Amino acid sequence: MNHVLPDLALMPVIELSGVFVGALSGGLAAVRKQFDIFGILVLAWATGLGGGIMRDVLIGVTPPVGIADWRFIAVACLAGVVMYLFNPRLERARRMILVLDAGALALFCVSGTLKALELGAGAVAAVSAGIITGIGGGVLRDLLTGEVPVVLHQRQLYAVPAVVGAVLTAVLWVLGSLTLFTAGAAVVVVFGLRVAALRFRLQAPGPW
Amino acid sequence: MNHVLPDLALMPVIELSGVFVGALSGGLAAVRKQFDIFGILVLAWATGLGGGIMRDVLIGVTPPVGIADWRFIAVACLAGVVMYLFNPRLERARRMILVLDAGALALFCVSGTLKALELGAGAVAAVSAGIITGIGGGVLRDLLTGEVPVVLHQRQLYAVPAVVGAVLTAVLWVLGSLTLFTAGAAVVVVFGLRVAALRFRLQAPGPW
Amino acid sequence: MNHVLPDLALMPVIELSGVFVGALSGGLAAVRKQFDIFGILVLAWATGLGGGIMRDVLIGVTPPVGIADWRFIAVACLAGVVMYLFNPRLERARRMILVLDAGALALFCVSGTLKALELGAGAVAAVSAGIITGIGGGVLRDLLTGEVPVVLHQRQLYAVPAVVGAVLTAVLWVLGSLTLFTAGAAVVVVFGLRVAALRFRLQAPGPW
Repeated sequence: MNHVLPDLALMPVIELSGVFVGALSGGLAAVRKQFDIFGILVLAWATGLGGGIMRDVLIGVTPPVGIADWRFIAVACLAGVVMYLFNPRLERARRMILVLDAGALALFCVSGTLKALELGAGAVAAVSAGIITGIGGGVLRDLLTGEVPVVLHQRQLYAVPAVVGAVLTAVLWVLGSLTLFTAGAAVVVVFGLRVAALRFRLQAPGPW
Repeated sequence: MNHVLPDLALMPVIELSGVFVGALSGGLAAVRKQFDIFGILVLAWATGLGGGIMRDVLIGVTPPVGIADWRFIAVACLAGVVMYLFNPRLERARRMILVLDAGALALFCVSGTLKALELGAGAVAAVSAGIITGIGGGVLRDLLTGEVPVVLHQRQLYAVPAVVGAVLTAVLWVLGSLTLFTAGAAVVVVFGLRVAALRFRLQAPGPW
Repeated sequence: MNHVLPDLALMPVIELSGVFVGALSGGLAAVRKQFDIFGILVLAWATGLGGGIMRDVLIGVTPPVGIADWRFIAVACLAGVVMYLFNPRLERARRMILVLDAGALALFCVSGTLKALELGAGAVAAVSAGIITGIGGGVLRDLLTGEVPVVLHQRQLYAVPAVVGAVLTAVLWVLGSLTLFTAGAAVVVVFGLRVAALRFRLQAPGPW
């Protein structure tokens, strides 16, 4: 690989942040469904780590870090416990899930693309892997709680920020400009796009 | 491998046709659920490429062509756009999904079995892989739209044509008689079986 | 590997028992949904083999035995046929699914952990793989029949026995004390825990 990310050591921080935030959204969805503490932990785990597990399986990294690295598992379970202890049972829960989900989406689609590129995947496969990392956990959360996945039915843009983030990361990589700073900027762009879509109800056109 | 498929170069055509037709059925299901354009694209992608992605993961081909080959992704997205632009909003939509689905089933169970055999999988694994390629996309489409998968609840034969097609392909391979012509004939047999089951309401026996 | 399981030759018996019992639970769920004979077979296959297939994919064993070994497929289909022929249509069906499911859970979380350890996975990955083997088939069964997975919404302990069984197996392995006898004891512990949870309504605390 001829592209060096000097502060690559900090990347796990980005990925673990995504796991924590994603797992929070899973734990909150579980609380809303009145699952017990273990159901909350399982859903936190699946939501926080599901996207990364799909990515690793798709690019041939076995066993995936989501089942092999105790830190990832611990962070996801911690998020579940936090949500169990401090669950607000508030009406704003739905909004909070959406914002947490936006954060995880942003962190995951950038870190997922990056990991695939580092492992030598081609640009197309890396972008796909990044998008799947970004949306996979939320899809799993929604399927497991009997909801239609937010990526499909949400009128406010959801897939588009993920695609933008993955493509941006791949382009920065190809240009040799991917540093922790630019990667962080890509995360901010994705998060901003998604939150703006929520805030200003930016809607994609539906069927005629 | 001692079995040669001289016109193997044409196989991608069969597989891409399956992707297009499967993605059309996914796009149509998305239109019926009133998803927006991006939901339609995601579901077209998942339906058109899901079965092949499962197959590739199961036989150890990573990254799967469904995420790595831009042609496959482009064809699936094209099918989504076509369905978005020309969606008929007609009552016959349900029937159209079923026929498109039959075409994808036929193309996928044959091409999926063949790909597994080419990659050195045993006959049992190849037949299983072919069946999963055939039914996987439709299962994913139905799960993602909150429906019980058609392969399970459809009284009209669905799994049987897929099994017939996969076994037929494997037998032809073992006999050394697999050419584009015989593979095409297997596709026609599967499609014919499935459409006949729909047309004549060939029902499998239910529980007593 | 420095840990030897002298009577390892008997392990397939444990695993095949799990497949049979898990597939029975899948077949019964299919009967309850009024699926036809082929829907019953597909769901029996998915429930009996799904957990093991997920495990194999996660630890890099391709193709998974669940698609490549005809004995596993035959046992799962046999269970489907048995359930089709002798389905009782009784009110106690729901309870029977739960007990069968407990048996499969116990057999799978022990054998799944063991298989991962034998293949050189680390302890954390092996425990995760064992848990996923244990709960995966049931999750698939519930998703495919449109139910919220029992592991999430069941108030009676479900994930806990699986975790106990996987951890117990890994500890016995590390201590070099894993024999067919101790593995069998672990299976009994998991099954006993789960059945006791059902019988005495041992409930995990829900959200406040």
